[in-house]
Amino acid sequence: MLIYIIDMFGTAIFAISGVLLAGRLKMDPFGVTVLASVTAIGGGTIRDMALGATPVFWINDTNYLLVIFVTCILTMLIIRKPKRLPWYVLPVSDAIGLAVFVGIGVEKALKYNADPMVAVIMGVITGCGGGIIRDVLAREVPMVLRSEVYATACILGGIVHTSALEFNVQSSTAMLMGVATTLVIRLAAIRWHLSLPTFALNK
Amino acid sequence: MLIYIIDMFGTAIFAISGVLLAGRLKMDPFGVTVLASVTAIGGGTIRDMALGATPVFWINDTNYLLVIFVTCILTMLIIRKPKRLPWYVLPVSDAIGLAVFVGIGVEKALKYNADPMVAVIMGVITGCGGGIIRDVLAREVPMVLRSEVYATACILGGIVHTSALEFNVQSSTAMLMGVATTLVIRLAAIRWHLSLPTFALNK
Amino acid sequence: MLIYIIDMFGTAIFAISGVLLAGRLKMDPFGVTVLASVTAIGGGTIRDMALGATPVFWINDTNYLLVIFVTCILTMLIIRKPKRLPWYVLPVSDAIGLAVFVGIGVEKALKYNADPMVAVIMGVITGCGGGIIRDVLAREVPMVLRSEVYATACILGGIVHTSALEFNVQSSTAMLMGVATTLVIRLAAIRWHLSLPTFALNK
Repeated sequence: MLIYIIDMFGTAIFAISGVLLAGRLKMDPFGVTVLASVTAIGGGTIRDMALGATPVFWINDTNYLLVIFVTCILTMLIIRKPKRLPWYVLPVSDAIGLAVFVGIGVEKALKYNADPMVAVIMGVITGCGGGIIRDVLAREVPMVLRSEVYATACILGGIVHTSALEFNVQSSTAMLMGVATTLVIRLAAIRWHLSLPTFALNK
Repeated sequence: MLIYIIDMFGTAIFAISGVLLAGRLKMDPFGVTVLASVTAIGGGTIRDMALGATPVFWINDTNYLLVIFVTCILTMLIIRKPKRLPWYVLPVSDAIGLAVFVGIGVEKALKYNADPMVAVIMGVITGCGGGIIRDVLAREVPMVLRSEVYATACILGGIVHTSALEFNVQSSTAMLMGVATTLVIRLAAIRWHLSLPTFALNK
Repeated sequence: MLIYIIDMFGTAIFAISGVLLAGRLKMDPFGVTVLASVTAIGGGTIRDMALGATPVFWINDTNYLLVIFVTCILTMLIIRKPKRLPWYVLPVSDAIGLAVFVGIGVEKALKYNADPMVAVIMGVITGCGGGIIRDVLAREVPMVLRSEVYATACILGGIVHTSALEFNVQSSTAMLMGVATTLVIRLAAIRWHLSLPTFALNK
């Protein structure tokens, strides 16, 4: 239940990041909603399509769509001055949503009998896939593919989650350990501006 | 049956819009065919993948592919001078195809027991998804996400369609009402250059 | 078995092309892995999603992911000077991988009772889809949509493959004929820089 609430919170936060990017690109309300939606539910949709877990999750539980629509409207109406918020509110909220998304993705893949390695990847897709689609639609090279400890936090969280299960840790405890790992690494990366060295080829 | 004919007509019209964009980008015949195909059947493909309605529609009915191929060849051979047509022929044809695509998408989603809200979204995906993929492949910010009453026409058509069903209107009549709504709004938008205000964030 | 080995070889070669493009874009190790993965398994993933062959192939056989990860690490560590290789090594390897991917795609589609025309398209998607996603993520107009005899080789190989089956040629022989066709045409295109005339619209 707590997971479900944080899942909805993460959906709203991811939707906001879509709205803000759409605003910078001067999109119309439909474009805003599309960008918010793909950011919030795009990753999980790819995961479910690949697993064959169809109809995909938001078809069976319309709360996701409702949360996105309400978030879009509220964000467009009220939060037009994001400067008012302390700078860390959005990244920290994003980190919380991200950590839960990864945990949910890993768990769903395991429920479909995926191998632990595949489960980690499904967790990463759930957490990062939406942001990648958002950036592609907005015609940017996806931010997450460049230099920031974002996907790495997801990978490590997923590995902790699946490894704990290998050691017979109880399912919900293992998920909590994974989520905490993703969250802590991501928060540390935000706090100290950590990034991985990039791989650059000359020419 | 009439629906099926208009569906094929819409497929051809959407394919033409892909061919024309490919022509501006100086693509080879394969690129032209890919752009025409994703425009014409991309939206319905995403819809079917999300619903779990696999194999997707054009695998079971190859008429869609045949219509696309013939349209590509004819467009490349004959219509190299689109200026000859009155300006409104393509947008009006596009509006007819769009309206039917939305109706088909809504109906298919309902057949898979989707909630009315989800059905409206599936209608919008069916109508607008192909054009979005086309623009992404052509490296443009999708036109439909910016300012034009295009997606809005689809949404309103889908709402009329599903609402009519809630009031126990007969299935085919409800679809007709939805299709007519999308078409009229879209034609009005073309005629009077209607567009929604955009949501723009400074900086 | 031989097919399986060449399939893994092709996976590695396609992954390398993703790594090299990621290197030019100065991506971090995660971005490198994502670009390598979508190039190597993106086409087959779309094919399986469209056919309803879920979970998609790399979920059931983790060798694909292992090959990609090892290829990424080796490529980043060792082959940082691709100039050392004779120029034709990568394109010729790519042609071998491409030809086998197309054959596998055609065969899988037929196993799911697809029409021969659909099977050819599934072969093309398997061979070319990954590279298209790679280029979209890297914000380039997909190379394969422009002027080179790349997709055309796939189409002709697929047609030979399915036509041979129509004439009751044995399944593995038909696949071999198709693969050989794709390979020979692609090698000829590399050797003599063949390309199709592009379709260009003024304005």
